[in-house]
Amino acid sequence: MDDALPGTPGSLMTAEIAEQPAVIERITTHGRGSCVDAARWIRGRAPRFVLLAARGTSDHAALYLKYLVEVRLGLPAGLMSPSTFTAYDARPDLRDVLVVALSQSGGSPDLSRSVEAARACGATTVALTNHAGSPLADAADLHLELLAGPELAVAATKSYVAELVTSWLLVDAWAGGDGHAVSGLADAVARELERRPAIAALADRFRFTDRVVLTGRGYSYPTAREAALKLMETSYVAAHAFSGADLLHGPLAMIDPDVPVVAVAPEGRGAQALRPVLELLHSRGTDLTVVGGAGSLDLATASFALDDAVAEELAPVSSIVPLQLLALEMALARGHDPDRPRGLSKVTRSV
Amino acid sequence: MDDALPGTPGSLMTAEIAEQPAVIERITTHGRGSCVDAARWIRGRAPRFVLLAARGTSDHAALYLKYLVEVRLGLPAGLMSPSTFTAYDARPDLRDVLVVALSQSGGSPDLSRSVEAARACGATTVALTNHAGSPLADAADLHLELLAGPELAVAATKSYVAELVTSWLLVDAWAGGDGHAVSGLADAVARELERRPAIAALADRFRFTDRVVLTGRGYSYPTAREAALKLMETSYVAAHAFSGADLLHGPLAMIDPDVPVVAVAPEGRGAQALRPVLELLHSRGTDLTVVGGAGSLDLATASFALDDAVAEELAPVSSIVPLQLLALEMALARGHDPDRPRGLSKVTRSV
Repeated sequence: MDDALPGTPGSLMTAEIAEQPAVIERITTHGRGSCVDAARWIRGRAPRFVLLAARGTSDHAALYLKYLVEVRLGLPAGLMSPSTFTAYDARPDLRDVLVVALSQSGGSPDLSRSVEAARACGATTVALTNHAGSPLADAADLHLELLAGPELAVAATKSYVAELVTSWLLVDAWAGGDGHAVSGLADAVARELERRPAIAALADRFRFTDRVVLTGRGYSYPTAREAALKLMETSYVAAHAFSGADLLHGPLAMIDPDVPVVAVAPEGRGAQALRPVLELLHSRGTDLTVVGGAGSLDLATASFALDDAVAEELAPVSSIVPLQLLALEMALARGHDPDRPRGLSKVTRSV
Repeated sequence: MDDALPGTPGSLMTAEIAEQPAVIERITTHGRGSCVDAARWIRGRAPRFVLLAARGTSDHAALYLKYLVEVRLGLPAGLMSPSTFTAYDARPDLRDVLVVALSQSGGSPDLSRSVEAARACGATTVALTNHAGSPLADAADLHLELLAGPELAVAATKSYVAELVTSWLLVDAWAGGDGHAVSGLADAVARELERRPAIAALADRFRFTDRVVLTGRGYSYPTAREAALKLMETSYVAAHAFSGADLLHGPLAMIDPDVPVVAVAPEGRGAQALRPVLELLHSRGTDLTVVGGAGSLDLATASFALDDAVAEELAPVSSIVPLQLLALEMALARGHDPDRPRGLSKVTRSV
């Protein structure tokens, strides 16, 4: 990947996207032990339900973790609505409930107050943050550090990937796995980084659109949502993400040939479930870009073949990378500095 | 409210929006008994966790029900991801779990298969649909009929309000309430219907925007999401809904003076929690329309004062009405027929 000179537009985001293979290596080498210990401790508490708490980018990692918990562990899971604790003072019965909160900074008071309240209500609480000693890390029974290194860009990239990998290692250990599927993942991400020229060409083709619709199913739905957020916060395009199933309930009306659709469909059951939706879009003449596996590319106007060697369960780690690069390139093509999005700062103070 | 002649653009949607006070009266008169019986039966099963399953418009009613369950009943709740059952064949341990599925038609195979699977996994299952005898009604242990009457418009309106009122009656009875707060609600909705001329003027002012951002917190967040979906499916505008808290994480960058924001803020704790977000938008010169209570109107460029006599918990029933009318009027102002959105049919066959 090309290096951007420090201080030039997008140099921080560029550098942090490029760091992702090293972050993954660091977590799998130095972080797995903590995940295994945490999993053993959690198993000892025998939670029967899992609640996930997060905001923004981390909310998409939480959604990924929800799928993992439901599919790999067979435990019902839900996303927490912090306002029920912080605005409505709800004090639910959370015995047998594991609460996992995810946040890069660990500094959002909304989340740390929710975790404190959940703990007081009987929940077992775990925080995943990039900052030991942050209020959220302190509020939880157990803290897993993300090991992403300092994240300076406003648009979170490497901390998101760190949240995904840490979540996977935690659930894999909890399920009794040996973590082997994660080997090769850093290399797969490194290969995605080499695609920047092709993605710059796609960004150029999207130069004049003011809308993008993203879609995915199952494990890839969080990827579609995270990609939409990156596009919104860096290039200000109106990006919508819908699960393939929801797309047919209303939002389909919004899609005409002038709205490009980007489908995230790495090989697997999610892609199989998404295929009829892509066939429908294809039959309607939709401009369809597929970031996906061999089984979905035939329906695309433009496509980025993903490495089918990455298991579907881990594909969200590698498939977000071309979409991070797309957000970066679209911002640059439009003359914006993705490191200085208007109106945003790095840590969101809760309101 | 003006009647539209049958066959003229929007006549179905117009008629069904206008029916909503009668639907509410019907449910509170004839539907409450079933809700009380269902609540007694559910209490006997003593669920400790609640999962909600729905798609599209009904997903927003499910989100409303999630807040009610957490705040009124003190039970942790989450939204189900049907694909974990249908695409990934997850078979979680759902003993002590109540699953509530909401669907106007009851005909989406994705949902009925999920409820069947949940029931086989030990869950107590309840379906809220407008059609006794539908696959979803048959799949669940217990069916509550929505009593909305036949819904013909593609854009769901009265079935959404019926889902909200039925959800409230169920939870209120479960919590030991006597249902009295619902009296006066049909009248409050009827008063909202009288605002159509003012809303037509707002729709005219929004004639040339291709984006709208909606926001709300707590009980009003589902309202913001449902309004965004209505706008997308009828007038094809790119409408985004964000909780007030999430708006500050990234999407704020997308808002400039050319993007109108509509805030849903009936009096109550949600509006109090939202106020700092509205103050920030106001200070940035955002074009801010408030559908809300007295405490939020001072920050607005345009406003629709809601009836403060409606309890915050029930305000989603009345506050969606001006936003349904806005979707209708924006579609008509743009020359679209909201009864014939492109690419949509009434029942979504799952894929």
